[in-house]
Amino acid sequence: MTTTSHERGTTAADSLAISSGADLARLEELTASMGLDEDLVEPYGRGVGTVDLAAIERMADRPRAKYVLVTAITPTPLGEGKTTTAVGLGQGMRHTGRRGVVAVRQPSLGPSLGIKGGGAGGGYSQVVPMDRLNLHLTGDLHAVAAAHNQLAAMIDNHLHRGSPSGLDPEQVTWRRTMDVNDRSLRQIVTGLGPTAHGPVRQTGFEITAASEIMAALSLSTSLRDLRKRMGRIVVGRTRDGEPVTAEDIKAAGAMTVLLREAIRPNLMQTLERTPALVHCGPFGNIATGNSSIVADLIGSRCGDYLITEAGFSADMGAERFFNIKCRISGLTPDVAVVVATVRALKVHSGRHRVVAGKPLPEEMTAERPDEVRLGAENLRAQLRIIRRHGVTPVVAVNAFPTDYDSEHRAIAEVAAEEGARCALSTHFADGGAGAAELADAVAEAAEEDSEFQFLYRDETPLREKIETIATEVYGADGVDFSAAAERELERFIAEGHGRLPVCVAKTHLSLSADPTLPGAPTGWRLPVREVRLSAGAGFIYLICGTMQTMPGLGSAPAAESIDIDDDGNIVGLF
Amino acid sequence: MTTTSHERGTTAADSLAISSGADLARLEELTASMGLDEDLVEPYGRGVGTVDLAAIERMADRPRAKYVLVTAITPTPLGEGKTTTAVGLGQGMRHTGRRGVVAVRQPSLGPSLGIKGGGAGGGYSQVVPMDRLNLHLTGDLHAVAAAHNQLAAMIDNHLHRGSPSGLDPEQVTWRRTMDVNDRSLRQIVTGLGPTAHGPVRQTGFEITAASEIMAALSLSTSLRDLRKRMGRIVVGRTRDGEPVTAEDIKAAGAMTVLLREAIRPNLMQTLERTPALVHCGPFGNIATGNSSIVADLIGSRCGDYLITEAGFSADMGAERFFNIKCRISGLTPDVAVVVATVRALKVHSGRHRVVAGKPLPEEMTAERPDEVRLGAENLRAQLRIIRRHGVTPVVAVNAFPTDYDSEHRAIAEVAAEEGARCALSTHFADGGAGAAELADAVAEAAEEDSEFQFLYRDETPLREKIETIATEVYGADGVDFSAAAERELERFIAEGHGRLPVCVAKTHLSLSADPTLPGAPTGWRLPVREVRLSAGAGFIYLICGTMQTMPGLGSAPAAESIDIDDDGNIVGLF
Repeated sequence: MTTTSHERGTTAADSLAISSGADLARLEELTASMGLDEDLVEPYGRGVGTVDLAAIERMADRPRAKYVLVTAITPTPLGEGKTTTAVGLGQGMRHTGRRGVVAVRQPSLGPSLGIKGGGAGGGYSQVVPMDRLNLHLTGDLHAVAAAHNQLAAMIDNHLHRGSPSGLDPEQVTWRRTMDVNDRSLRQIVTGLGPTAHGPVRQTGFEITAASEIMAALSLSTSLRDLRKRMGRIVVGRTRDGEPVTAEDIKAAGAMTVLLREAIRPNLMQTLERTPALVHCGPFGNIATGNSSIVADLIGSRCGDYLITEAGFSADMGAERFFNIKCRISGLTPDVAVVVATVRALKVHSGRHRVVAGKPLPEEMTAERPDEVRLGAENLRAQLRIIRRHGVTPVVAVNAFPTDYDSEHRAIAEVAAEEGARCALSTHFADGGAGAAELADAVAEAAEEDSEFQFLYRDETPLREKIETIATEVYGADGVDFSAAAERELERFIAEGHGRLPVCVAKTHLSLSADPTLPGAPTGWRLPVREVRLSAGAGFIYLICGTMQTMPGLGSAPAAESIDIDDDGNIVGLF
Repeated sequence: MTTTSHERGTTAADSLAISSGADLARLEELTASMGLDEDLVEPYGRGVGTVDLAAIERMADRPRAKYVLVTAITPTPLGEGKTTTAVGLGQGMRHTGRRGVVAVRQPSLGPSLGIKGGGAGGGYSQVVPMDRLNLHLTGDLHAVAAAHNQLAAMIDNHLHRGSPSGLDPEQVTWRRTMDVNDRSLRQIVTGLGPTAHGPVRQTGFEITAASEIMAALSLSTSLRDLRKRMGRIVVGRTRDGEPVTAEDIKAAGAMTVLLREAIRPNLMQTLERTPALVHCGPFGNIATGNSSIVADLIGSRCGDYLITEAGFSADMGAERFFNIKCRISGLTPDVAVVVATVRALKVHSGRHRVVAGKPLPEEMTAERPDEVRLGAENLRAQLRIIRRHGVTPVVAVNAFPTDYDSEHRAIAEVAAEEGARCALSTHFADGGAGAAELADAVAEAAEEDSEFQFLYRDETPLREKIETIATEVYGADGVDFSAAAERELERFIAEGHGRLPVCVAKTHLSLSADPTLPGAPTGWRLPVREVRLSAGAGFIYLICGTMQTMPGLGSAPAAESIDIDDDGNIVGLF
């Protein structure tokens, strides 16, 4: 969920200025526009409310909104404006006289202070107030961290007191978490000191978005369901190899209590007063990269179109959205918007490289519809992934000031060849008016018959699930499991986790497992290094490559230029 | 701020039930009753608001409330009900037709999940809703931790990138913080790993209440003032011994931005609808143990009596309240309520020992007014400390069901001998009605002429400040500085910190530095082991004994019995 501040040449400072100048609807107006009973929404500081989960049951008889997922082609490291498009489309729905509701992820605090550009949205397609969105919001991320670290403290206390469960100090897999970019915490040793402070153990911190609790919270359908998921979390193993759970540590109840308010989705709005549910933000590689199920269950009864987003590209976020999130929620998507940009398609031609934090190479701004066409193999592959799930795709061309009409036409032609609708969208610069064409295309697509289907059934053997994702989604020739991965797979099957869905942690910068391969690579095999269990969140995940779960700070962190001015206003945030 | 659930035989479960059954005033009613303009208070979830600091200036012309501090005799490890008395007195003011406002500290999350009994108040003298109070509230503690750990991350990143300031990795004194009881984090090694994750350093975590940022937040008079305090924080030294500040690390602006909402006091209420400002909770030994200055600046214009509390006994919390907090705020106290209990006075007789987490020894429930009289030396000493500052003391006898009338009479006699008003208070069992006598006594005392005075002037040399506190407040014969303490003192004087006030971190279980000495010990000297600088908070502090700044969990942490029931209600919290 990075803001692509390059879009339309609008700068980061402009985004903050636009947000500050927003004319917000009062919370009661927003609630009324959603048909939500007043007692279900609690104000929670300036411009923000939280929604009671009782809304789900109370609105069960209401007509269900068309369910629209915003996903993307394989992005450059800069991001291609997926969140911005989701927000813009929500505004576009309103602009064209339709009732749209947006459901997006909550940005992490750590990266907001690390790299310039947070979420959600940018320019004239933002969720506001953006300072609250990016700074603590209603404290959900901190609550996730508190629950996570409470479990960690109880594990070490359990060990300190003789480990009644038999948990082996050397087989504890539960680490700690904090919403900060801090590479020094990646690997640490705890329990040091002159007196006994518990076992001396090597462990470390993940950023909060990478916590299994974040994933579990996003996939819970109720507080009771969350309670069960907390209990199922596996924290390590006994010397005999038996799993030890948070329930065994007697921490699951307190963890749930710590999350009792965090499970309520946050209600905000876009610059154009479209209701925006902001909730959860799990990682998009080791976890689902989707916002919460409860937000979608509520939002789907509050308008005609519920627009949500999924992290990274369609092979990553959309695949998990379909096969993990929708499997649990029971909601069926109608339309998937695939965001494409000229710059990313040029990169997929294989002729350019883009590096995060650096400006685009000059030669990429030349008029090259041929490169766009060449790179469109990636777009075609992503559209087929959508179709494979029985969902109607719509291509959204996220326009940039450096684009040429010929390049936009090239994308439209490819979409037509694939039988998909296509719309040019200038929501970053023009807000909802710029997304009107996209809104019309999505509304049309939503009227088509669609037959949503999962990629695999619960009963499909784990290995087959993995092979299906690799071959049918990524276009691999097959899967290579390491010896360790084979063993772990066997163990999880033996322990009864074979029915779980699968989340593949691979690079998001290629359809393949190799971040340097653009387009739609063929003739490769998916290397599975490790298989891990997220029993609380409810999936098996595969490590294919190196996954960094605690970011570091750069040589000039964004935080260095963030401050208050003499009037107490924030300066330098984005 | 521990709840003395033994009071009046009311159990912890009763306190939660009483809180759940409370008939709360709507936030607008509460705001109106304080004469606060509506636009100054933002609702922040169920039963809670936050107050804009603009209130301070806007209400500057209003009459100032009588300023009442609730302090105590030297407590047993169980606590003697200071917060409960402050809350009860606030209710008593209302019960007797007076406008009271309460300003108390925010309880820590870690201990709430560690030891049964959180804050603030208990029985029929509580701040409500107590679940919100004890679980995250508006996220202020998490915001303090985020600011603290953001600075820590930027320090290690600074070192990782060649330490442009010259900061010596081995002389970094800034640690990390988390609101959890976790002994494993007391001493850790960071920066491990196969690749360079920054310098490998030995460091550790403090609980958030012990963060210098918490103390600085509580002592700030405005957001601008907080910004300056953040910049002044000393994080370590160069190889040449020069201090390096958060300003040098370029973190102070971002830290302030992270605290921008946390500096707004939280507005809650007591069970009887007395407005309660809940804000900050710094440690009572290494820091001031007082709630925030901004809460008092606001509260002092919102009623006839502003009642606040200070951690531990009068020699600890009240002394810092007078000489640190009031020095910065400019507010002058009128009355100090000294809470006394029969059980604590019996312990001060030297004939009993009380251990935290264990029931009172059976023999302490025998009728022994003689023991109460014997132990009252401690009460006399605490009353003299109040008088020394020119403030009028009132003794509040916090009644317990195991007390005898003869024992209460003994306390009243001692108070009379010291020329102090005395009132029996049954607020725990009876709410405001039980504190009516105390409210009358406080109101009378507030009409007396008082001439508040500091114990020392800014210009008084540091050594003399320390000796004055030791001899005139604690009753020591003098002070013994370790060689290290001597050196540190010289250094801080040379660096221009000689005008700062002093905070003495000693045991709270005795007037002396030895926790086993009851009553009012004489013939001893204060041993100063270390002298440290809290340049951001704005005081020098002395380490006299062992100070634990990260609690551990017991053999049966409270968290183990906390859970949600089938209806999603919290069970087992207190």
